[in-house]
Amino acid sequence: MIETPYLLFLGDAPDGLAAKVAQGIKDWRPEHAIGQLRLPGCNANLGLPDLSIAEAVDKGVKTLVIGVANRGGIISASWKSVLLEALDAGLDLASGLHNLLRDEADLAARAQALGRSLHDVRIPPVPYPIATGKRRSGKRVLAVGTDCSVGKMYTALCLEKAMLERGQRATFRATGQTGILITGDGVPLDAVVADFMAGAIEFLTPDNAPDHWDLIEGQGSLFHASYSGVTLALIHGGQPDALVLCHEPGRPHMRGLPDYHLPSLEALRDTALLMARMVNPDCKVVGISLNTAAMGAEEALALCRETEARMGLPTVDPFRHGAQRLAEALDAL
Amino acid sequence: MIETPYLLFLGDAPDGLAAKVAQGIKDWRPEHAIGQLRLPGCNANLGLPDLSIAEAVDKGVKTLVIGVANRGGIISASWKSVLLEALDAGLDLASGLHNLLRDEADLAARAQALGRSLHDVRIPPVPYPIATGKRRSGKRVLAVGTDCSVGKMYTALCLEKAMLERGQRATFRATGQTGILITGDGVPLDAVVADFMAGAIEFLTPDNAPDHWDLIEGQGSLFHASYSGVTLALIHGGQPDALVLCHEPGRPHMRGLPDYHLPSLEALRDTALLMARMVNPDCKVVGISLNTAAMGAEEALALCRETEARMGLPTVDPFRHGAQRLAEALDAL
Repeated sequence: MIETPYLLFLGDAPDGLAAKVAQGIKDWRPEHAIGQLRLPGCNANLGLPDLSIAEAVDKGVKTLVIGVANRGGIISASWKSVLLEALDAGLDLASGLHNLLRDEADLAARAQALGRSLHDVRIPPVPYPIATGKRRSGKRVLAVGTDCSVGKMYTALCLEKAMLERGQRATFRATGQTGILITGDGVPLDAVVADFMAGAIEFLTPDNAPDHWDLIEGQGSLFHASYSGVTLALIHGGQPDALVLCHEPGRPHMRGLPDYHLPSLEALRDTALLMARMVNPDCKVVGISLNTAAMGAEEALALCRETEARMGLPTVDPFRHGAQRLAEALDAL
Repeated sequence: MIETPYLLFLGDAPDGLAAKVAQGIKDWRPEHAIGQLRLPGCNANLGLPDLSIAEAVDKGVKTLVIGVANRGGIISASWKSVLLEALDAGLDLASGLHNLLRDEADLAARAQALGRSLHDVRIPPVPYPIATGKRRSGKRVLAVGTDCSVGKMYTALCLEKAMLERGQRATFRATGQTGILITGDGVPLDAVVADFMAGAIEFLTPDNAPDHWDLIEGQGSLFHASYSGVTLALIHGGQPDALVLCHEPGRPHMRGLPDYHLPSLEALRDTALLMARMVNPDCKVVGISLNTAAMGAEEALALCRETEARMGLPTVDPFRHGAQRLAEALDAL
């Protein structure tokens, strides 16, 4: 677990997109986002108070989170001095960067000397077991996609928000770096060794109260040649009671695979159910989440209505319209 | 690549089963199996010449292969002295043990000082790429199973033997530790990091001559909750033109999963084809391999005939009956 609350380090982010991890934390865990720290040249702004390290410590911050992608894979000297200052002031560090905090000799030495934690969330923090396939108490819903990066994480986070507002018991379960930084916990599934993937998801979603829902962040797609094995491990490790189908309309081809068209929602429904029912014969598809970010409001609503009529399933863009209807569908299950 | 030929180290194997890796090498690569080395108390015997290290070197041996499972996960003092002697005499070492040769300080130091290689085949030897999903020249057949350990490796090895005898161009492609030690090369897929599984299989089966067949060793099963993700990565990375269905009759449940029944051959056929055709729309099931080791000769033949009539596919126990009919089916494709 990464200790909260956070100071969000935006560094010298060239634009808002470069700071999307920080934006995600602010959007989904505002209570953890006490302030931001920006260096000269930073063009991102979350609208949070700009705090020095000392001010952040005064406000109770426990961890400085690197909420920005670094340029050229190098932790620059200007970043380094801030990170060292944070360690000196009593903060832990958390990062989803490809180059690891622990591989920086000066950070590692300072953290060890001071007893601080360096959280590199790209690296599994514990050894995971082999999956047992045993049923667990509590309920689980998994977001599955026609492709990578179609909004599976946002769907699960929107669902958590809607369910908690309705008084349902629900926990978002992160399976990727951004999700882990948002919630402070999770499994970096793409970095887990093959034999332990499904076991890692069982570990992430243990026995729970009968009316509690784990909202499992999806990864990849059963139809994506590069990452489909990761997706199937999620399905078989998660043993979902419910699936939400996620799709972004208008993509010309699968992400990174110009030779592959996206599957239809019907094909996703049938294939994901086939695989899920191997481990949970009662699994059902409860709804559809469309990522309509690139569409106008009217067009988005029309597409949702049309898709809903065609598929016979509640269909929303949960980021735009809220996930209440998906939450209701889970409640009705 | 592990240099051949080999001296097969049987250690103090309590019985023949403990030396099954050595047995596999002797069965499938007899030209690499120059001799065996047994310690006092060894109850395994491959029927190969018993050679000292010095005699093996005289006969041109390049690598001592640990062909036996060790007891209690410890490389004992009696083993250690043989391994050090082998390094001193100019041999490399190769092992599929869970505890690694490289983690033994004395072996690592001696190997480094002498310029010898320690091949721990449980560890991926190179970084693998992300899969691209691009079509490659040449043909590929993959063994898929109703369960783990139903004879997928033996099926592919039998197929290689039959195809080479018929003058077809074919290469067994190992994806597990035993297969890698048998052939001296391959991908230890269960130890590959999730994101790179399918890419590792693309790397293992690159462009080849149009009439060349890669015979890809299968792993796990699409229906096995613990390892299904590994299997799907094999299917999507391998882009098979052909599948052979592998099954062991009579199992009460999936291996290690007492709550799960085995799927039918029909379910395996339909599910594996569905997944394979996502990356290779022309993929076909060409035959069935039954592991009838536990049955009498008559019973085995009757089951093959019955299965063949039911499924409409050539059905053999390739270890018992040869794989000629499967090879013919590939040829006819």
